[in-house]
Amino acid sequence: MARIVQKFGGTSVADMDRIKNVALRVKREVDAGSEVAVVVSAMSGVTNQLVAWVNEAHKLHDTREYDTVVASGEQVTAGLLALALQNLGIDARSWLGWQIPIHTDGVHGKARIQDIQTDDMIRRMKEGQVAVVAGFQGVGPDNRISTLGRGGSDTSAVALAAALKADRCDIFTDVDGVYTTDPRIVAKARKLDKITYEEMLELASQGAKVLQTRSVEMAMNHRVRVQVLSSFSDAPGTMVVDEEEIVEKQIVSGIAYSRDEAKITLLKVQDRPGVAAAIFGPLADSAINVDMIVQNVSDDGRTTDLTFTVPKADLDRAVKVLEAKRGDLGFQALKPDSNVVKVSVIGVGMRSHVGVAKQMFQTLAEKSINIQVISTSEIKVSVLIAEEYTELALRALHTAYGLDAN
Amino acid sequence: MARIVQKFGGTSVADMDRIKNVALRVKREVDAGSEVAVVVSAMSGVTNQLVAWVNEAHKLHDTREYDTVVASGEQVTAGLLALALQNLGIDARSWLGWQIPIHTDGVHGKARIQDIQTDDMIRRMKEGQVAVVAGFQGVGPDNRISTLGRGGSDTSAVALAAALKADRCDIFTDVDGVYTTDPRIVAKARKLDKITYEEMLELASQGAKVLQTRSVEMAMNHRVRVQVLSSFSDAPGTMVVDEEEIVEKQIVSGIAYSRDEAKITLLKVQDRPGVAAAIFGPLADSAINVDMIVQNVSDDGRTTDLTFTVPKADLDRAVKVLEAKRGDLGFQALKPDSNVVKVSVIGVGMRSHVGVAKQMFQTLAEKSINIQVISTSEIKVSVLIAEEYTELALRALHTAYGLDAN
Repeated sequence: MARIVQKFGGTSVADMDRIKNVALRVKREVDAGSEVAVVVSAMSGVTNQLVAWVNEAHKLHDTREYDTVVASGEQVTAGLLALALQNLGIDARSWLGWQIPIHTDGVHGKARIQDIQTDDMIRRMKEGQVAVVAGFQGVGPDNRISTLGRGGSDTSAVALAAALKADRCDIFTDVDGVYTTDPRIVAKARKLDKITYEEMLELASQGAKVLQTRSVEMAMNHRVRVQVLSSFSDAPGTMVVDEEEIVEKQIVSGIAYSRDEAKITLLKVQDRPGVAAAIFGPLADSAINVDMIVQNVSDDGRTTDLTFTVPKADLDRAVKVLEAKRGDLGFQALKPDSNVVKVSVIGVGMRSHVGVAKQMFQTLAEKSINIQVISTSEIKVSVLIAEEYTELALRALHTAYGLDAN
Repeated sequence: MARIVQKFGGTSVADMDRIKNVALRVKREVDAGSEVAVVVSAMSGVTNQLVAWVNEAHKLHDTREYDTVVASGEQVTAGLLALALQNLGIDARSWLGWQIPIHTDGVHGKARIQDIQTDDMIRRMKEGQVAVVAGFQGVGPDNRISTLGRGGSDTSAVALAAALKADRCDIFTDVDGVYTTDPRIVAKARKLDKITYEEMLELASQGAKVLQTRSVEMAMNHRVRVQVLSSFSDAPGTMVVDEEEIVEKQIVSGIAYSRDEAKITLLKVQDRPGVAAAIFGPLADSAINVDMIVQNVSDDGRTTDLTFTVPKADLDRAVKVLEAKRGDLGFQALKPDSNVVKVSVIGVGMRSHVGVAKQMFQTLAEKSINIQVISTSEIKVSVLIAEEYTELALRALHTAYGLDAN
């Protein structure tokens, strides 16, 4: 008998009609003879309202109280879906994080799951009861509700699937799978039948918002077979699987982009040992993540130019931190630029194929798109370009790597 | 150092502005040097929305899921008020029913509190932390959220006050105290400074909606000093206290009325032993509460007329139950009447004074108001009259018992 975890996001449970629809979908899986656990998000809009209230109550809020307030959204959906299932004649019960329990660490607001007690749940699932689990939440060592960070219900679902040793974890969302690139930009984008964990991880961390990055890491570590599919259609989705399961490997599987980064260039920084630490240390201390870094070759042997990216939301803060250190760092000028986009080509096939980066540079050059920064990993090449070229670059690369739909 | 429990109802925490206002009120008590625990209801309207969703999901809902969904409202308010207090520089934390824990029995939807663990809370209160407790909820023996029935936050507050051995339990509501009668009907109604538990209990169960009946019983049993007062004004409220605390006892303290009852008259019922059981048994089996009962003297020695009241909401059901038994009961006709009101005069002074009932009948007779049914208890006389006389009867009785404000 198959054991399946199904996860439904906020738009899939946005109102009672949709919750009833979700119940019908769960019923289909039950009727097929599966043991089913369902993980639900808050009804869409609810979390935003709760967060707004929290911020109105206290701008720099106590994250323990934030968790108490915000986790109530998933609690409501879990109860309502259990009732909607019962209304279809299906035995079902809701489970809150503290009831299972899902133990997390004590980092409220972005807690990490430590362990999940599933004995009672499995016993009931074997008796035919559907477990409806409130996503996004657990219980901390302080016996208070903890939450897993925005999008944390994906992580709840994958962690539960791992703990339940589920055969599959279906993530129902408002898109019907993982695409070669954003279909809103590239009309010829294709839905992928399968993608590897590593590729999905790069896609998620490079800006594709289908799955929360942490959930993909967790799926990879525990070898949970994840399927991304739409709750609004019956089409099969995209399976996220082990590399061995993919017979025909594409060299490039997908192209991601992120508009969430901004560029900072420091002109005429002193070119001496320790200067990088002097620059990036204070940024790290201010919890600002630096992503791409490029240091130019020194012209005069004494100074150099340094370019790097930070999250766009942190740009102003980063500039302030660096200007405050200007005396120590001795740079001549600081040039911030938020009109940039990071474009990444991703594919496990790169490991065994050379020339992927070369083709990327060539394609962009043919369109006269200037590359500002480059960074690479084993299965990814990312470039920073001016934001206005986003669409042009995505379409050209999609064609160049043979990804266009027929 | 005084230890105070404060309870704020739904209208007092209806939005963030009001929650901030409540925080200021709590601060005043903290600044006065008290140890404070606060019990909160859901923001007004929230519970109704949640109940509507539950009914939409499943008409005959599983009360365990009902509790899971509906209790979320108080959870949100507790977190938000804790944050609003922190924002004023006051150490505060929210407590949910399962965290304290407040253990209840397993009757979901209308659970009864069995015990409250307060050691940790008291330790923190002694250190100056305000405990913000989600009202209306506990945790059942099944480790699932239980709720105490509509208005259950009053009971939460009184039970907590008893467990904490609090010096006072302040129930903040949208009226500024307990009145001699409904001031919307009788302009000369006076706010009472003090009222005994027994009187308050009769008032609550006779239709005055200031406090939940169960909370008054509990206050009486545990001798919790309860004060009813408005969260929108600074006037002192009404203290509900032991009879010994009231020096000048009124014979009649208040006049209540209830439009929630309906009358049923059975004509020509057989007058033989066992007939009452045959009539009221089936009603009890259908969970229909019978309140006032009067049986006429038999004219012919074989049949009699029987009149009684049931909750107006159950009238149709009661008629069906009785009609189905018509063959067995052998009554000639059944006359339902929902245009009735029950008016009660209440006062502990009745125990030592005769003539209270006589004065009531006389006053009503002077206004040509026909009394349909009478019932009495040690400190109460209730009559059933036609609903159209409600205002007239209340005003006349209020004057007759010397309750009018100067």
